[in-house]
Order: sequence, then C-alpha cells, then structure tokens
Amino acid sequence: MTRAALMTGISGFIGARLALRLLSEGWRVHAIVRPESDVAEFSDRADLRLHVHDGTAQGMTAIFADARPDVVFHLASRFLADHDMKQLDDLIRSNVLFPAQLMEAMANADVRYLVTAGTAWQHFEGEDYRPVNLYAATKQAADDLLAYYSDARNLSAITLKLFDTYGKGDKRRKLLRIIGDAVRSGDTLDMSPGEQIVDLTHVDDVVSAFTVANDHLRSSSTRRNEHFFVSGERYSIRALVDQVQRSTSRPLRVNFGGRRYRDREVMVPVVPTAAQRLPGWTPAHGLKEWLPSLLDE
Amino acid sequence: MTRAALMTGISGFIGARLALRLLSEGWRVHAIVRPESDVAEFSDRADLRLHVHDGTAQGMTAIFADARPDVVFHLASRFLADHDMKQLDDLIRSNVLFPAQLMEAMANADVRYLVTAGTAWQHFEGEDYRPVNLYAATKQAADDLLAYYSDARNLSAITLKLFDTYGKGDKRRKLLRIIGDAVRSGDTLDMSPGEQIVDLTHVDDVVSAFTVANDHLRSSSTRRNEHFFVSGERYSIRALVDQVQRSTSRPLRVNFGGRRYRDREVMVPVVPTAAQRLPGWTPAHGLKEWLPSLLDE
Repeated sequence: MTRAALMTGISGFIGARLALRLLSEGWRVHAIVRPESDVAEFSDRADLRLHVHDGTAQGMTAIFADARPDVVFHLASRFLADHDMKQLDDLIRSNVLFPAQLMEAMANADVRYLVTAGTAWQHFEGEDYRPVNLYAATKQAADDLLAYYSDARNLSAITLKLFDTYGKGDKRRKLLRIIGDAVRSGDTLDMSPGEQIVDLTHVDDVVSAFTVANDHLRSSSTRRNEHFFVSGERYSIRALVDQVQRSTSRPLRVNFGGRRYRDREVMVPVVPTAAQRLPGWTPAHGLKEWLPSLLDE
Repeated sequence: MTRAALMTGISGFIGARLALRLLSEGWRVHAIVRPESDVAEFSDRADLRLHVHDGTAQGMTAIFADARPDVVFHLASRFLADHDMKQLDDLIRSNVLFPAQLMEAMANADVRYLVTAGTAWQHFEGEDYRPVNLYAATKQAADDLLAYYSDARNLSAITLKLFDTYGKGDKRRKLLRIIGDAVRSGDTLDMSPGEQIVDLTHVDDVVSAFTVANDHLRSSSTRRNEHFFVSGERYSIRALVDQVQRSTSRPLRVNFGGRRYRDREVMVPVVPTAAQRLPGWTPAHGLKEWLPSLLDE
C-alpha cells in the first residue's frame, strides 16, 4: 500500500531533498506551504500534492482531512540568527503557533507519528537547555508543546537536532557557499579568527536521518518523544578553509580576524552522547569527497 | 524617590490586588491592558496609568518609552483548562508572543527586573516538566524564552509558580466559589470522588510573594533566573468540604462521585523542596480563619 507523508518545509534545502527521496521511494507526499512559498520545482508532479495553508486553524484541519497522512515530517522553520522586535510576531507564529496547529490537527485526526527538526543551538556550551539565540528558544518552546501532545494526546515523535548541513543546490548564505564565492571571485574574505568548530552533515545524510527516524518510530508500539542529534564531521573554520584550498586547487584568500566573533559564537558545538545519536543512522557522505564539487554550481 | 512598576493582568483577581498593594505602598503603577479589559476599578486614579496595548511590537515599545518602570510584574495570562483548535492562536498570542514582546521591550529599554507567574501545572505528577494541559505547556514555552532573555539580554527574573488561590472578590469559577454558591442555594453539588489534594494560598499572601520576589531580585547584584513555588495549605476536596461545613454552620450537600475525575486530574500537586520556596515569604493568612467569610458576598 502506498504510504502517505505530510511534509512542511519543502521550499527549504533539506525539505526539498526529503520530498524527492520520499517520492523516489514511492510515497505519496502532501506538502503544507505558505501562500508565498517558492515551490515551482514541485508544482507539476502527480504524486505530490501542495496544500496552501492560510494560517488558520480551520485551514489546518481541512488539510489533514484531505491528506490523511501516515506520518508528518515537520521541517518548516523561520530561522533568524538575530532578531528585532518587529520580527517577534513572525518568529512565534512560524516556530510556535504553526507547529501547535500541526500537532493539534494530528491529535484530532489520529495521526500518530511526527518527525520534526530542532537545532543544536538549543544547547549553547553543551548545556541541556541554553539557547544561543531567540530562534533556538522558539524551537525549545515548540518542544515544550510537543511534550504535551505526546503525553496527553498520544503523539509519538522524534526531534532531530540539526547542526550545519551542506550539499549541492544550497541557496542559503552558509559558510561553504560564502567560501565558494570567494574562491570564484578571488576576493579576500574577511573572517573571524576561525577557531570555532562547525559540525557538518551532507544533506542526503540528513534526509536519511528523517527516514530512519520514521522507521524507528514504527519499530515500537510504545509512544515515544525522543530527541537525537544529527552530528557529522567536525572542523575548525581554519581547518575547513585549509581543506577547501587543498580540494579545489585554486587560491582562496582569507583574512582571519578581519571580523570579530559574533556575540554568543558557538566555539564548540554540543557533543552528543552515544544515547543521543539516532539508532540505525550512519552518514554515508564525507566532506573531503564532496569539496571538489564546491565550485560546480 | 517614587518607584515605578509596570504591570500586566490588573483586570485579574491577583493582579488587581497587587496593583492596590503597590499603590498603597506609594508606587507609581503603569498597567498594560487589552482594549477589551474591564479595568473600571482603576480608571480614575492619578497614581495609576493604563496603557492599552494594540498587540503590536511598536505599541509595546511606546509603552516602555512612556512608563520607564523599575520592575515589571507580569501576571496576565490566558487560562484554559481545556482548549480546542480554534483557541490555539489566542493561547499562543497571550501566553507566548505577548511575554516575548514584553521581555524584548524590557531588554531594549534596559529594564532589568521581571517578576512573572507560572503554574504548578507545569509539574504533573511532580515531574520537572510535564504539563497538565496545553495552557501549562504555553507557560513553559514562555519560560524557555525567558531563559534566552535572562542569559543573553541581561534580564533578572523570578517566576512564581502558583497553585490555587482564594480570597474576597474572586470572580473566577473556582472551587470555593462553587461550594459557597451551593451552601447559599441549598442545591446538591455533584463532585468528583474528592480524594484529590488542592494547595490553597490567600490572595494577599500571593501578592506578598510578588513584592518579596521583587525585593529578592534587588538584594543581589548578580543576574537571576529563578523559579519558586507559592505553596500554601493543602486539603483534600473532602476535607475542604468538611471544613466549609464546620465554618459556615450551614448545610452543604455534596454528592461525591457524582462526577468523574477530569482527564489528567492532579491528585497530588507537586511538593516544593526547601530550595524551591521563595526566601523571605511566609503566608500570613489561614483558610480556617477565612472560611467564615465565604458567604459574605
């Protein structure tokens, strides 16, 4: 029987890849999108159905009545490294109210399984909970609501705490893209002193983590509310720049110390314990193998 | 010098009494109210200023520019024992977005001190965090935003976790009021089996907890983000009904078991450890002394 997944975040880098993976595995995919989402890539497929959510409770209920999914993959997120007062409403609406509507609709429609995304930034300096920024705090807030929906409304859920991700087609202004642009342009790149560590996982491995999490949820009849880190390879920024220079064989000029560390810079990301690693998930992609393709786009 | 407090929740039972206490102690009081709040009681006072908040970020910023408080007492809360999908927006807006706006405005205006209210219902069956209902989960969510504002934006805060409260003029449909109505009417009151324990504190003692918490915040130059329970006297519902019968010397007919316990009934409220009790706070009012006045209104 065809399995049906309801997804959020398919206009994002990871969400788009997860949708393609599920489709390639024969799933029927329903995706909740915002009226303004750019989802042209998915608009002509018979096996994927787009549901434009108007932000209301009724709209969410109607989507579930139509999609009747076996599982929900919730990847949509409003990310802001910094925020100001005017962005609070959008941040809370996207990262707290929207998942609340999603979980309420799941509970009301008897959809039990949820795989959702958190961030390693909920664990500044390795603590159980210490948010790097307000974005991370809103992810924790949604997690607080999930605790209710799991315990009182029977949702079985896994939250994947993500670090940095990379891969082909990433349009986000992330570090590897900025470095790639500097290699291409030959411009000198002003960077922080570069001693901070980043934890990098290839997008296809992150996508696997979501499907493995779904399998894991279904492998047990007991209700779960578990959290796992999706941790890959660790490099200091300096080591990463070295590696790019070696891999691309093209000059990369970096001025370390040309910028300051940001406020609350994560110098060493939280180190997951063995119990905090997703059972059955092993990354298949290495950064060194991927880096030569950095300049392909 | 006159101290200035910015309050929320003055249209509520506890907030109104806290406002009167602060005014009697010579504070200048500013109160943030909703356009629909019933605050007729406070509309004619020269020492209290009402600020109608339109729900926007700009509106909140303007209130702080005007009030310039020394401390914020945040008591406003949207309480729902149960909820449905249509109430989610209001619940998140009132209990998560509004406190976020409040704390953001505090940080931007360099207002350091916050005394706010949580609920013992964040601790179902005595656990560190297990919400009885979605209302309690939204209080935890706001608390997790506070962790950011305290750690990253220098707010010094105390959260008072409240149990049940009582006192003259309580318009809420709480247990003691329902019992009082049954004594007056002579009607038989259908109740649950009545073995559950309630923790009751007189409103004037709760108000004292808020002022003691403010003193406590100011007693130290280090930044705080502390949580204390405001725990008073404990009675089973059966023992409470006994006590009412003795105190009022009037018949009270209760049919124990005429209703079922509610879903996720709190049978034994969380028991605070010594470290979880607010230093310097001791209740001055006893329920037995107060009960004879139950029928006064």
